[in-house]
Amino acid sequence: MTSSQFTAQPQKICERLQIRYPIIQAGMVWTSGANLAIAASKAGCLGVLGAGSLKGDLLKKHICKVQDHGITSFAVNVPIMYEGSADQIKEAYDLGVRCFILSAGSPKIFTPWLKERHATVIHVTATPRMAKKCEDAGVDIVVVEGFEAGGHNGRDELTSMVLIPQVKKQVSIPILAAGGIASGKQMYAAMALGADGVQIGSRFAATQESSAHPAFKQAICEASPEDTQLKLRAIAPVRLLKNPFFHQVEQLETSGASAAELKELLGKGRAKAGMFEGDLHSGELEIGQVSGMIDHIPTCQTLVDDIIKEYHQTAQHMANLMS
Amino acid sequence: MTSSQFTAQPQKICERLQIRYPIIQAGMVWTSGANLAIAASKAGCLGVLGAGSLKGDLLKKHICKVQDHGITSFAVNVPIMYEGSADQIKEAYDLGVRCFILSAGSPKIFTPWLKERHATVIHVTATPRMAKKCEDAGVDIVVVEGFEAGGHNGRDELTSMVLIPQVKKQVSIPILAAGGIASGKQMYAAMALGADGVQIGSRFAATQESSAHPAFKQAICEASPEDTQLKLRAIAPVRLLKNPFFHQVEQLETSGASAAELKELLGKGRAKAGMFEGDLHSGELEIGQVSGMIDHIPTCQTLVDDIIKEYHQTAQHMANLMS
Repeated sequence: MTSSQFTAQPQKICERLQIRYPIIQAGMVWTSGANLAIAASKAGCLGVLGAGSLKGDLLKKHICKVQDHGITSFAVNVPIMYEGSADQIKEAYDLGVRCFILSAGSPKIFTPWLKERHATVIHVTATPRMAKKCEDAGVDIVVVEGFEAGGHNGRDELTSMVLIPQVKKQVSIPILAAGGIASGKQMYAAMALGADGVQIGSRFAATQESSAHPAFKQAICEASPEDTQLKLRAIAPVRLLKNPFFHQVEQLETSGASAAELKELLGKGRAKAGMFEGDLHSGELEIGQVSGMIDHIPTCQTLVDDIIKEYHQTAQHMANLMS
Repeated sequence: MTSSQFTAQPQKICERLQIRYPIIQAGMVWTSGANLAIAASKAGCLGVLGAGSLKGDLLKKHICKVQDHGITSFAVNVPIMYEGSADQIKEAYDLGVRCFILSAGSPKIFTPWLKERHATVIHVTATPRMAKKCEDAGVDIVVVEGFEAGGHNGRDELTSMVLIPQVKKQVSIPILAAGGIASGKQMYAAMALGADGVQIGSRFAATQESSAHPAFKQAICEASPEDTQLKLRAIAPVRLLKNPFFHQVEQLETSGASAAELKELLGKGRAKAGMFEGDLHSGELEIGQVSGMIDHIPTCQTLVDDIIKEYHQTAQHMANLMS
């Protein structure tokens, strides 16, 4: 399944992003630095740097490292609700980055500036309505993220199964499905639902090249299907792996705590402590529902090869269903 | 896509249940009486009576009505946590029903009794773990219901995209996917994920032959994608359409109300008032996330024809993706 074997939108995505497969490695906090972006790119996907946790001169260092590997087609993911996101976008652009994935904010804020400069703009949304707003704002590609996704999540809790076909009806720009996709079977299903490609997060977090702490990667592998849940709706909904910190949140929420009390518990630096420093007890462990089906830590190359192989097996299986 | 065109599990399901398509019309409270079961059966699916709201002699009347139409292959859905479910199962069996869909309870309770009497037992579950327990208890087919489904829902909130492939790894009995399926595209995606067929609920609730009140059917058609949400987790999670009653529940939950307070608000008869009597203000309106994509009220025959047509179009689209 190379770009030349695809017709219509998936091919457009591959050509537009200069990648072999219509797969985007999600930009995630604390897990997607240069090593992951380089490995995902080399495996045929769009490698992405998660700028949300690359503060100060770290973003520049990671961009330069990816470029030093001769990789020109990669993206920077910027959650635009944070202070400093405008500076990050400008800095990345000045360093030569020409593909941006923006999330957690209005598509109207940065799209005009980037489009005037001929950059590719991908925007992450969680509802058909917002996807339409992205298209209207001039966004090139939308990532539509279902309820099953890890980390920060939409308030409307639409799952990939219902979200993808509804977005497909609303927009004519290409759609990348995210949330619940860790295998070739799921990639195939997402594309049958109307996606032109996929964005994969949690499964890339548990690869050799991800910058997640080894203890967090191991925790992902050991997770049962029931081991994540969406929490902190009173602040901003986020899907977490169950650990002692999760249970503290749960207890507070059950007792009817206010947003202020939850914010106080959350404090600062918990995501870094959990995902990057491996504090499985007190850290915030953001991960998707698919962690229940992740049981090993492959290289990106092996992972992508396996996904593509299973995609083809699924296509064959579906063709065989009708004799 | 008739049974003779299917190989492997979907064909097994069609043969086992003596139906043309691997589609089960879900047994739902207040919406799935004899008229719907008859129409769904005639359209090539398994028609199902929802016994949860067929109390007293109503169940017998509806069973006899289906049988009077010469339909032998249909099922009764019994939520087994209610008092009287044992009597309903026995009554239905004595009237000649040989296919049962059980939900909301352990598969160990009634499966042995039914299997001794050569009935087909289908059990509804929401996790891979429970699906395995069903297989171990002798259940013939599992329905696996994702978070996007309407009405009562599992506590682990697994979506169809992640639930289906994980159940497939756990069990070797056939799997019917439920939750988020209202179209041929979604049926195709569910089968690509590993399902052998599908159970469709909300989409059948908004057909001509469903016993839902016309005002409720109209409300389903008018619903936006964001218009349902899972509520009442403190009692038993249930997906509701947003209406004034929903907002009352939301307000109580946000204020940290206890299960007892929520139960008091819920009271008795709200589901009947909303879904069967059309009280859109104070009634409890149970419906799935797919209501956002439902915009007309077809007959079952037209609906099933459209689903099968779109299934084939999707198969063709997926074959065309790779040239």
